[in-house]
Amino acid sequence: MKTRILTGITTTGTPHLGNYAGAIRPAIVASREADADSFYFLADYHALIKCDDPLRIQQSRLEIAATWLACGLDAERVTFYRQSDIPEIPELTWLLTCVAGKGLLNRAHAYKASVDKNVELGEDPDAGITMGLFSYPVLMAADILMFNAHKVPVGRDQIQHVEMARDIGQRFNHLFGKGKELFTLPAAVIEEGVATLPGLDGRKMSKSYDNTIPLFASAKQLKSTIARIVTDSKLPGEPKDPDNSHLFTIYQAFASPAQLAEFRAELFDGLAWGEAKQRLFDLLDCELGEARERYHALMQRPGELEDILQAGAAKARKVATPFLGELRESVGLRNFRSEVASAAPVKKKGGKAARFASFRETDGSFRFRFFAADGEELLLSRPFSDPKTVGSLSQRLVAQGVDALELRADEGNQFTLWLAGECIADSPSYADEQTLEAAMLRLRQALATLAA
Amino acid sequence: MKTRILTGITTTGTPHLGNYAGAIRPAIVASREADADSFYFLADYHALIKCDDPLRIQQSRLEIAATWLACGLDAERVTFYRQSDIPEIPELTWLLTCVAGKGLLNRAHAYKASVDKNVELGEDPDAGITMGLFSYPVLMAADILMFNAHKVPVGRDQIQHVEMARDIGQRFNHLFGKGKELFTLPAAVIEEGVATLPGLDGRKMSKSYDNTIPLFASAKQLKSTIARIVTDSKLPGEPKDPDNSHLFTIYQAFASPAQLAEFRAELFDGLAWGEAKQRLFDLLDCELGEARERYHALMQRPGELEDILQAGAAKARKVATPFLGELRESVGLRNFRSEVASAAPVKKKGGKAARFASFRETDGSFRFRFFAADGEELLLSRPFSDPKTVGSLSQRLVAQGVDALELRADEGNQFTLWLAGECIADSPSYADEQTLEAAMLRLRQALATLAA
Repeated sequence: MKTRILTGITTTGTPHLGNYAGAIRPAIVASREADADSFYFLADYHALIKCDDPLRIQQSRLEIAATWLACGLDAERVTFYRQSDIPEIPELTWLLTCVAGKGLLNRAHAYKASVDKNVELGEDPDAGITMGLFSYPVLMAADILMFNAHKVPVGRDQIQHVEMARDIGQRFNHLFGKGKELFTLPAAVIEEGVATLPGLDGRKMSKSYDNTIPLFASAKQLKSTIARIVTDSKLPGEPKDPDNSHLFTIYQAFASPAQLAEFRAELFDGLAWGEAKQRLFDLLDCELGEARERYHALMQRPGELEDILQAGAAKARKVATPFLGELRESVGLRNFRSEVASAAPVKKKGGKAARFASFRETDGSFRFRFFAADGEELLLSRPFSDPKTVGSLSQRLVAQGVDALELRADEGNQFTLWLAGECIADSPSYADEQTLEAAMLRLRQALATLAA
Repeated sequence: MKTRILTGITTTGTPHLGNYAGAIRPAIVASREADADSFYFLADYHALIKCDDPLRIQQSRLEIAATWLACGLDAERVTFYRQSDIPEIPELTWLLTCVAGKGLLNRAHAYKASVDKNVELGEDPDAGITMGLFSYPVLMAADILMFNAHKVPVGRDQIQHVEMARDIGQRFNHLFGKGKELFTLPAAVIEEGVATLPGLDGRKMSKSYDNTIPLFASAKQLKSTIARIVTDSKLPGEPKDPDNSHLFTIYQAFASPAQLAEFRAELFDGLAWGEAKQRLFDLLDCELGEARERYHALMQRPGELEDILQAGAAKARKVATPFLGELRESVGLRNFRSEVASAAPVKKKGGKAARFASFRETDGSFRFRFFAADGEELLLSRPFSDPKTVGSLSQRLVAQGVDALELRADEGNQFTLWLAGECIADSPSYADEQTLEAAMLRLRQALATLAA
């Protein structure tokens, strides 16, 4: 069996070299594994939480889509889509919202961190906190549960959110699954081996430190950025210590063992920092050059990117649409017609169908009982003198289905069942109209399983 | 101009006589007013907050749909739909979630009441409170804002939620409207004149008091329920005080002035309570008899109800789908192709289009400038010796549109614009790739307004 792996990509920034080494490259490698059924999505509904600049959102979605494809993501092999192209996701979010405990969300680290900051500043604890920030673990649960992902590769800060998705999914299964696991419970996968790239100043490469190396800058720009990498002040000819040089660490993330050994030896031998930077430039330009061309070509053809993502959305919705239908069914948001017709799938899924059982009364008459799939007796026929009548009646019920039947309710809160103008059975008396209607509904549903 | 009035109907119970007199009847009367553009919807997403019994949800939706139609709601005239048939609503809910302040929701009465109850019991304040209960005012805001309702008839307990919808809508307008009112801000309408019907025991008729008169019970059942109305112990012949009899109050809600005067006189004259109950039965049976027949007929034909609601959903989505498209556009969830193509509607909506302006340099050469619709200069052409060249170039740009153009980015963070193999303009140099891409995007968008 294939393992379904789901990865969300936030769409608020422009990817830099650190994102490439730490996330994009390993994810693309992982997507090529034989047993992987990988889902990658642009988490643009999430982006709205942090960013209210439409142009930034739009531009980032475009850049990130182009980046992943330029870096070699195979959109034919994986499922690559924008979250906002899957209307099933916000709908599932609401279904999950109804079962998620508020207390669970109160404990989310990201929310608590914002509250702590407010309290420290003497502000109202929830000052400036939107419902988006507060409830986004529910959206994330919908992202994951919608596709029944087995594994969700995340950073340490996101483990809790995957656990929340498990909690919420489990609660939904418990409430509405009738013993069946509607949702697969996902597991967080921590990417331990992944490189955290240092930035120009040696701290972790991050947009917030303004120390990034752009991923798809022009060669000229890449060169001038690399020139700004901070080194020690050793002169050309003086031996350099590779293990205390973040320039070396960056080089390491892209070099083959042979290249690395050579670079290390050269540094020990006193390679000038300027030369060392040229070596890094050559290495990166070689690693990224082709992807950069593809990236800029894609950025020039937004229509093509749109087509690729629309095809991805169609692929994702092939899973999402019928599954959401099943989930809606499970909570009671059913097509009214499905009361009659859609009980059928219940049978197909290996459940039992409703059934008839005929028997002889002590007075010599014959009757049949009609049982729902779960064994509940739904009706008892009137007594007939001939067992053949009983047999042919139940055969006609199965053959002609619900449409041939007429249910009549009477004033005593009973209903009677008519077939071809003949009353064949009557129900017990129900406490009130509501219970009566519910019983008739169950009967219609059970008959529909036979018709199927 | 028509006034759009939006009414949500919760789908967790079976309608009783109190619902009919207090909500259904006045709403149906209001829907017939000439300037009313009424929207009625079964709030089944809301129902999920309170009810995790799928059968109850399903049954109640069916009963309530049948009730409103049986009582005379004209589904052709109004827009009558199930909330859960409009996928735009949960999607809008998420867009609003991202702008709604958590502090706003903290102050919701319904949530605070639950917290108070927990605190009183010594429980955790959020014990047993779901995210559904906490965030449902955001869903309600989406219900209202989706259709730009002017008026929302509500009970006093719901005024606050309509105010929250205003708050959230206002904030969204402010953040994303660019001076335009994306959302109409709704006003709560308090139904002051509406009858609150007493129940069997004289308290307000309510399911929670178990004192209701079912709306569409059989005549027999209606009679036996009326027989249980509590009266004083005055004997037949003794004068009764109509103003201290809730039997009289119920009668009043359905009687003509003449009927009422007669009933009042009879009670003063000593009409027996048994007789009085018969009078009430006759009155109700006359008011509800036909509707009851229609109701039970509809309940037997769920497929027909389904068709009516599907038609209603299609009508509602004619409004919701394009409007959500506009809202998505405003927050940045755009079709990538729309960067090129969809700037056109901006022009149609009465905005200005981009434009060319040609001029003569002091050295005698000719150039043109290209301005975005908002007046920003996007590019300056290269100098040409002949003014005709300038004119024909801008004409060709308009005629052949974006597709004929080629944008090339160079290493110095400039881009050049090419037409039929000729470089016609170059941009200033941009600080970084990201700004460059954004500028090219703006240029593409501006050119698209011309093409339209």
